[in-house]
This record gives sequence, structure tokens and C-alpha cells, in this order.
Amino acid sequence: MEADYPIGIFDSGLGGLTVLKELEARLPAERLIYLGDTARVPYGTKSPETVCRYAVEASAFLANAGVKMIVVACNTASAVALETLRERFPLPVVGVLEPGSRFAVERSRSGRIGVIGTEGTVRSDAYSRTIRSLMPEAYVVSAACPLFVPLAEEGWANHPVAHLAAADYLRPLQSEEIDTLVLGCTHYPLLKDTLGAVLGPDVVLVDSAQATASIVAELLEGRGLLRTGEPCEPRFFVTDIPTRFQRVGSDFLGRPLGEIRQVDLDTLYG
Amino acid sequence: MEADYPIGIFDSGLGGLTVLKELEARLPAERLIYLGDTARVPYGTKSPETVCRYAVEASAFLANAGVKMIVVACNTASAVALETLRERFPLPVVGVLEPGSRFAVERSRSGRIGVIGTEGTVRSDAYSRTIRSLMPEAYVVSAACPLFVPLAEEGWANHPVAHLAAADYLRPLQSEEIDTLVLGCTHYPLLKDTLGAVLGPDVVLVDSAQATASIVAELLEGRGLLRTGEPCEPRFFVTDIPTRFQRVGSDFLGRPLGEIRQVDLDTLYG
Repeated sequence: MEADYPIGIFDSGLGGLTVLKELEARLPAERLIYLGDTARVPYGTKSPETVCRYAVEASAFLANAGVKMIVVACNTASAVALETLRERFPLPVVGVLEPGSRFAVERSRSGRIGVIGTEGTVRSDAYSRTIRSLMPEAYVVSAACPLFVPLAEEGWANHPVAHLAAADYLRPLQSEEIDTLVLGCTHYPLLKDTLGAVLGPDVVLVDSAQATASIVAELLEGRGLLRTGEPCEPRFFVTDIPTRFQRVGSDFLGRPLGEIRQVDLDTLYG
Repeated sequence: MEADYPIGIFDSGLGGLTVLKELEARLPAERLIYLGDTARVPYGTKSPETVCRYAVEASAFLANAGVKMIVVACNTASAVALETLRERFPLPVVGVLEPGSRFAVERSRSGRIGVIGTEGTVRSDAYSRTIRSLMPEAYVVSAACPLFVPLAEEGWANHPVAHLAAADYLRPLQSEEIDTLVLGCTHYPLLKDTLGAVLGPDVVLVDSAQATASIVAELLEGRGLLRTGEPCEPRFFVTDIPTRFQRVGSDFLGRPLGEIRQVDLDTLYG
């Protein structure tokens, strides 16, 4: 039965584990397959053409694994590849960008919304376009924060270095008096405390991982595709050897990851 | 005539441009071909097996372009792939690791030598082994500094964030009373001022880009392969679209890069 099929999730690397974590919390009965393209991480500094090609290869892998839905748990790929994936694969494809934008619009009182993300996400202007399509009077201001991913992966999310970098990156957004900030990169939820400390309690932080889990739940329910039954462990696949994914990923999820298998997308679908 | 053939240089991305710059300064008559594997950057967090495969593909590209020598301008690839490349390609192959180690041994008075690099370089222990093979009584202490590459590429090499991160990363080396520090990543020469400010004037910084240019000069001279004639512009190839390489690379070299062509190593040699 289709409801019993797994949900496929992919990201350039580890960041999408924040989305997997929220999906587990929200939909504990679902079977989850996670693919991290760790041999080619990061996507955020690469061109739209290259990211699109990688996203198609990752989705082909998940489609062949028999998933009922593809979750693009990577902001860069959501920003540049979603249309292509929807054309190529006969499955519901959910990105992190639309859910995050919707939550931001629902929460902002002033309509002055900040977005932070990788260079690629910010340059694509995709959040700003999506937010304005939902709220034409919104004023959206964005900032690329390229150091946040390495800071999160270094385990320095709450280190003074992260605080100093955040103060620098967020200054232009603060002077624009935003009342809502979209964390437009799946790594950024790990920096929530630091970002909150810099911005103060009056700015709402929108976690796109949480937003995405809500939208996935809604969509599956709407189509009668929610799984019932016992929870089971997610299955993990990566494109580089799993050592680093295992170590840093356990920090992200707060538990060991279990078995992780290596696959070669270049050869299979390149 | 073989002396007239170009020198091929490759790196995972931009970092190797510091080596190209030193080669230009040292050997202005040489023709240079630079390949940056920007679609798969960085190598530093990837497994030895994956990095080795990428290095073979990059070298195959340079060998096909008719180079007289391959310079592996990437510490991670030098640490894990040099033997494989020397077996596979009938050309002199120079890495950045042996030159940096030799300079460190020549400069250290106390034999207490620090090495900083990416996670992959440090984990491979290659510097430490090479240094001790040249100076068995040397005491080598290493530290991975994963934030230095993103800091250099962000143009933050002299930012207070870089200073704070450097102070944190270097503390264990300082307490070991090193008198020499090898900059074991081709991005790190950009951080020289910050590193010097943190360590003070008594610690010698060894720039492996400079060391490599010296060794290349020596080797070409020894084999009668030095080119004479007019200087000419280097040729640049990258595996992702060139926009970002062009922009950040100009900062690295201090001048515009000229024409940059995109190639697909996956398809050509994967």
C-alpha cells in the first residue's frame, strides 16, 4: 500500500538531519530514507546548473528506492531545482523554502522579514520571491552567512566566534528593523540560541525544518498517505564514506545514527 | 621541446592559486595550467578514497593537456594521493607537503614544529610522518582549523572573527612551545598576518606555497626542463561554472584571472 512506502529526504550533507529530526517528531510512524551527498557537499557555493544536476541524481536514487514523496531538505537545492524535480519525477516533491516562507508570513506583524542562508540561496532570491508571492506588501532583506555551516559542523554553534560572526552578519538586518528571521539553511537551527541572543526576544525565528515537517504532514494527510503502525529506524545513505557523517550527524540528531550505507550517484545516475 | 610544455597545477578549488602565484613570481617564463575542481570542493572533509579518485581524474586532465609536471597544490590530495599519482602518471608529481616539511625542518631551531591544516590533512598525519622522516627527533603537534578556509574565502582573513578563531585553534600549539608553524593548507597564506599577530614574532611561519615553488624550480632545473622565453598568462579550468572562482580568485591573485573554462571531469575521466 502506498501509505506504507517511505518518505525520501535528501540534502548535500548533514544539514537535512534537522528536517529528518522534525519529521520523526511530527510523524513517528513514517519510514524515512535519508540521502546525504557528502562526496559533493556543499551545494551552497556551487552554480544552479551543477546543483540542479546533483539534485536530479539524488532524487533518482530515492525514486528508485520506492519512496512516496521526496523532501528536498536543502535550501540551495530547493531554491534552484524544485521545478526541475517536479517535472522529472511523478511524486510529490516538497522543498524547505515554501514552508519556511509560509511560516514567516503567518508570524510577521510588520511584514519586515529577514532571511539568512548560504551564498547560493541568497543569490537565487528565491525566499524573497516566495514570501512576496504570499504577501505582496512584505519587505524582505537577506544576508548570506557562509560561516554558519562550518561553525555548526565544528560544534561551535554557541562559541564566542559564532556570536561575533552572527553579530556581524545580522547587523544590516537589525538596522532594517525586521520582526521575523527565516533560518534559510538546514544547518541554522543549531545556531538558534546564538541568533536569539544577538537579535533579542522581539524577533521571531522561523525554523524551516519545523515548517517543512508541518507541510509534509498536511500533504500526506490530504492525500490519505499517512502511515500507521510501529515506528522504525530511518535508513541512511551517503556518497562519501560514512565516518564523518556518523560522527557529526550524531551531534545533530542527539543519538547514534545506526547503519549508514555508501552509494555512488555519479556512476548510478550521472 | 619538453622544456616548453606547461606545468599543470590542480587543487580542489581556489586555494592552489597561492601556489600558482608563487610559481609565477619564482618562474615567470613558465607556462601554467591551473585546474580547480570547484564542483566538488572541498576535499578536506572527504575520505581518502574519494579524494584519491578526484586527484586521479584531475591529473588525467592535466596529463592529456600535455604538461611536463603535475603540481598537487592541495594539501589534502598531497597527503592521500601522491603515491597513487606517481604510480599512475609517467610525469614528475610534486605535492605541497614535502616542500613545506623540508622548509620547516630547515628553519626550526628547537625541533618543536606545529602544523595546521584541514581535518583530512591533520587526520592523515602525513606532515608529521614526513617531518619526522627528515628529522627523527622532531616533536610535531597538529591542529585542524576547519574555519580558516571559509574565513579566507569570505574575505575575513583579517576580521576579528578570524583573530578569535585563530587564538582558539592555536592555543594548544602555543602551550607546546612550537618555534615553527607549517601552514598546511593552500588557503592559509592569506591568514598570515592574523596568525603572526596571534603567535608573535618568535614563531616562524612556513608558507607551503613558497616552499613548493622553490622545489619545483629546483626539480625543473635539475632535469634541464626550465623554460626560457616570454612570460604568458596562465590558463584556468574549473569544474563548476566560473563565476565564483573568478570573483574570489581575483582577491587571491590580486588581479583579474582572464579566461576561465569549465570542464566535466566526471564524464571525461570518472
